Amino acid sequence: MKQPILIQFGEAVRTLRKAQGLSQEQLSFKANLHRTYIGMIERAEKNITLINMEKIANALNVGIIELLKKY
Amino acid sequence: MKQPILIQFGEAVRTLRKAQGLSQEQLSFKANLHRTYIGMIERAEKNITLINMEKIANALNVGIIELLKKY
Repeated sequence: MKQPILIQFGEAVRTLRKAQGLSQEQLSFKANLHRTYIGMIERAEKNITLINMEKIANALNVGIIELLKKY
Repeated sequence: MKQPILIQFGEAVRTLRKAQGLSQEQLSFKANLHRTYIGMIERAEKNITLINMEKIANALNVGIIELLKKY
């Protein structure tokens, strides 16, 4: 299932998370999602839903479109 | 489940679909998704996944970010 769009989204999440000095656990807490779920998203192992994209974007203080730059 | 982001996405799909003179059935055919699924997305009745967002965006010849303008 490692589709390019999921890979790009996951890499954008990881890059922004690290730039903000957040662990996966801290981001998961802010986004109200499970820590293992954040890891799966970053590794493009899950086909994320729009609602969860919004939760992660909000937790990172960016718009969803910041996480979808190439798309 | 009618969350604002799903409503905005669904309305953007409907607006672009109609602007291109496509029926739900025609769009579903181009996107390789079920016609009833397109209707549910336009009515914000389903929490769409990123892969299916990409399928719809491709079928409408736009970027996903065009469907997420406010987000």
